[in-house]
Amino acid sequence: MARRIIIIGANASGVEAASAARKKDRTAEITLLDKEKTAGYSRCGLPFVIGGQIASFKDLIVYSPAYFQMLKLNLRLETEVTAINTKEKTITIKTNNDAVEKLEYDSLVIATGAEPFMPPIKGRDKPGIFSLRNMKDGEKIDAAIRSGAKSAIIMGAGLIGLETGVGLIERGLKVTVVEMLPQILPQFLDADMAKLVQNHLEEKGMQILLNKTVEEFLGSDKVTSIKASGEVLKADLFLSAFGVRANTKLAVEAEIPLGESKGIKTNSRMETEVKDVYAVGDCAEAPSLITHRPMCAQLGTVAVREGKVAGANAGGGYSLFNGVLASAVTQLFEIEAGSTGLTETVAARNSIEVVTGAISSKTRAAYYPNSKSVKVKLVVEKESQRIIGAQIVGGEEVTQRVNALSFAIQKGINVRELAKADTAYAPPLNETWEPMVLAAEMVLMKLR
Amino acid sequence: MARRIIIIGANASGVEAASAARKKDRTAEITLLDKEKTAGYSRCGLPFVIGGQIASFKDLIVYSPAYFQMLKLNLRLETEVTAINTKEKTITIKTNNDAVEKLEYDSLVIATGAEPFMPPIKGRDKPGIFSLRNMKDGEKIDAAIRSGAKSAIIMGAGLIGLETGVGLIERGLKVTVVEMLPQILPQFLDADMAKLVQNHLEEKGMQILLNKTVEEFLGSDKVTSIKASGEVLKADLFLSAFGVRANTKLAVEAEIPLGESKGIKTNSRMETEVKDVYAVGDCAEAPSLITHRPMCAQLGTVAVREGKVAGANAGGGYSLFNGVLASAVTQLFEIEAGSTGLTETVAARNSIEVVTGAISSKTRAAYYPNSKSVKVKLVVEKESQRIIGAQIVGGEEVTQRVNALSFAIQKGINVRELAKADTAYAPPLNETWEPMVLAAEMVLMKLR
Repeated sequence: MARRIIIIGANASGVEAASAARKKDRTAEITLLDKEKTAGYSRCGLPFVIGGQIASFKDLIVYSPAYFQMLKLNLRLETEVTAINTKEKTITIKTNNDAVEKLEYDSLVIATGAEPFMPPIKGRDKPGIFSLRNMKDGEKIDAAIRSGAKSAIIMGAGLIGLETGVGLIERGLKVTVVEMLPQILPQFLDADMAKLVQNHLEEKGMQILLNKTVEEFLGSDKVTSIKASGEVLKADLFLSAFGVRANTKLAVEAEIPLGESKGIKTNSRMETEVKDVYAVGDCAEAPSLITHRPMCAQLGTVAVREGKVAGANAGGGYSLFNGVLASAVTQLFEIEAGSTGLTETVAARNSIEVVTGAISSKTRAAYYPNSKSVKVKLVVEKESQRIIGAQIVGGEEVTQRVNALSFAIQKGINVRELAKADTAYAPPLNETWEPMVLAAEMVLMKLR
Repeated sequence: MARRIIIIGANASGVEAASAARKKDRTAEITLLDKEKTAGYSRCGLPFVIGGQIASFKDLIVYSPAYFQMLKLNLRLETEVTAINTKEKTITIKTNNDAVEKLEYDSLVIATGAEPFMPPIKGRDKPGIFSLRNMKDGEKIDAAIRSGAKSAIIMGAGLIGLETGVGLIERGLKVTVVEMLPQILPQFLDADMAKLVQNHLEEKGMQILLNKTVEEFLGSDKVTSIKASGEVLKADLFLSAFGVRANTKLAVEAEIPLGESKGIKTNSRMETEVKDVYAVGDCAEAPSLITHRPMCAQLGTVAVREGKVAGANAGGGYSLFNGVLASAVTQLFEIEAGSTGLTETVAARNSIEVVTGAISSKTRAAYYPNSKSVKVKLVVEKESQRIIGAQIVGGEEVTQRVNALSFAIQKGINVRELAKADTAYAPPLNETWEPMVLAAEMVLMKLR
C-alpha cells in the first residue's frame, strides 16, 4: 500500500516538506491541509503588497495549483484540522462544507506556523486592531487604506512592524511606531546598529516612540486611540506587531511535547517526541548553532530548510537538520539591515563573554562615485575567539555579507582567520580592504 | 639606532607595508622609493578614468602626501632603484636629478609590481601600441581619445583588457577585442560562465574575436593595423593587454631567487630566500590555498594583504601570510562577474578530479519587481567533496557572494554542508533558497 503522508499547513515549510517527500517516494499519497483559501504564498511578501511594490496579494503565490498537480499533491484548502490522534495515527478535519472526516497517516508533518501575539492589554477585544500574518489580514489593511485611513500606529518595532510601517508611509499614511523596549529591532540588532536604522526611518518620516508600553485600547465601537505609557495616541489604523507565537494548540492537545522555547520539540530529523510525527517551520523548535539550545527562529529560510528535512524523512529517507543561525535581512526604504548568529544582547543573556568590533566603510572605492555607507559589527566569543554573530547595516551589499559571515560562522571561523581572509574587490563594487575583514581587525585590537 | 626600512614601490603593497611597519616600530626610519611621479594611487581604478566614471587620474590617489607625512614615511618619487646588494645590505638609487646614492637598510621590502607582457610579435617595437599599467599609460590613452581616436583594438580578453574596452565604448569608440584562447577571461572564469559575460559585452556593442592570434603589427610610422590569424584589422588605437609579468629584474640581479611561478620566492612571512629582504604584491609569489603550490595572483587585494604581513615583519613583528584564494570580481556594463579558488580548467590542469554544479536564479523573490539574473557555479573536489572554487555572474549581488564562498572555502566547507547552510533572505533582496545553496544541491545530485 502507498505510504500516506499528511501535512498540516501548505505554505513555506509545508509545501517544501511535500516536495521533498515526493522526491523520496514517487507513489506516496501526499495530502496537504490548510485552513486558508490560498496556499503556497509568501507571507514575507505581505508588507510589499501593502507598500504597493507588488500589485496584488495573488502575486505572492509562489506555488500555483499547477505545482501541486504536477507533483501529485492532494491539496485541501479551507480545511481545518481539529485533532490529531497519534495512537490511532489519524487526524480529524472539518472540511470547507463543514463535514467532519478522519484521515489516516503513516507520516504526519505539523506545519501550523505561528500567530500574532497580543499581550493582555485592556480593550484588546475591541474591533479595529489589525495584524499582518496572512493574506486576509493584508486585504483588510489594504481595504482600510483604500477607505481613507490617513494615519497608523504600529505596536512593536520588529521586522514585520517596521516593514509594514514603511509600506504604509509609501501609501501616504502618517506612521507612528510604539515600542516597549529602548530600541527598534531588538531581536535582530544591538542598540548601536539599530540606531542607524532608526535614524534612517525617522528621516523618512516615521515617528518612533521607544520605551513606551501599550496600556489600553480606547474607543467605543472600535479602537480610535491607544494609551501608551500614559500618553493617548490617536490614529485611523492600529497594527498589532508585538510578535508571533508558535501555533501549538493541536500538538498540545495531542500530547505532542513542546520544548523549552515553547515550540514543538524536535530531534535532528525534525521528528517530534512521537514517532512518525514531524514538526517544521514557525511552530517547531530547533537548536541554535551557537548556544545549542532549542529556539523558534520563525524565519522563512529556516522553515523551508526544516520542511525539506522533515519531508525527506516522512517520505522514507534520512535527512538531518543541523540547526539555526537565524541569518536574516530586511530592506527599509534605502537601508538594508542584516543579522546572523547572536547579537551582543543575546550573547549576554546566554552568559557568553564577548568582544565586539565595528567599522563603518563604503561600498565602493573611495574615489568611485555613488558609494553608499556600510557598517559591520562582529560579536566574538572571548574564550575561543570564534565569531558567534554579526550585524550589517548599509545602503547596499548587505544580504550577501550576512551570508558570508553566516557561512564563516557555520564553519567555526575565528576572528584572526577573518582578519586575514582573502576577499574580492573592484573599484565599482567594493573597497580594497573588505569591511568585514576590517571589523575583525577592530576586534583584534581589543583582544591584544 | 633607529631601524632602517626601505620599501621599493609606493603603491598598494608598498604603502601597506610601510603603514604596517610604522605600526610595529614608531621610531623606524622608513623610506619608500618609486620611479613614478605619483605614489599611493589605485591602478585598479585606471579603466574607470578612461571610461569617464572618475573625472581625473589624480582622483585615484588613495594615499595623499599628507598620509606619508602623518606616518613619517620618507617618500622619494621619480627615484629608480638600480641595484640591491644583500651582502652589504644596501641599495643603489638614481634620484630625480640623476644623482646616484647608496642607501643602507636593516629590512628591505621589494614591491616592484608587474609590467605588461608583450609576446615576440613582429613589429612590436613600432610606436602606437598602448598599455594600461600606470597613470602615464592612462594619460596617453586619454590623450589619444581626445585627439579623435574612433576605434580601438584590444589584444587580450583578461580583466584589464575588458574593463578598458568597456571604458572605451563608454567614451564612444568602436572596440574590437582579439583573444588567442577560445573564451574571454580565461584565468578567471570557465568557458560556460565566460560566455554569459561575452553575450552581455556583445549586446553592448563590443566585438569579440576568439581563437585569434596576433601575428604582426602593421604600419610605417606607427601601428595602423594588426594581422591576427591571417586577418588584417584596422583601428585608431591599439591596446596591449596580453597580461602582466612579475617585475623581478632587480631581484634576479641581486641573486634573490625566483620561485616556480617566476615571481620572487617567499616564505610565509613574505620573506625572500635572503634574510631581511621581503617581497610583496605583483612581483612576489605565495601559495595557493587550494593547490598549496606557489602562484602570482597579481590582485590588489592580495598585494595589500601581503604588504601588511611583510611590513609587520620588517618592523620587527611576527606576522604570517596564509595564502591566496584569488577572489576577484569585475563590473562590465550591467554585469558583474566574480571568481574565487580554482576554475574547472585550472583544477584539471592540476590533475584535480572535480564535480561541478551550476544554477541560474534571480536576485529577488519571484514576485518582486526589478529582479536580476544571477548564476552560481561551484567546483567541488570529488574525493573530499570540498568546494575548491566558485564563479558567479549576475546583474547584482555578485561581489559578496564571492566573499561568502571565499570564506566558506577557506574554512574547508564541503558541498553537503553548503547545501544545508543557513542563509538570509527578504523579498526585495534575495530568493528564499539562496542560489549558492541550490548550486550545492546540483553538485550533490551528480555525486549521488
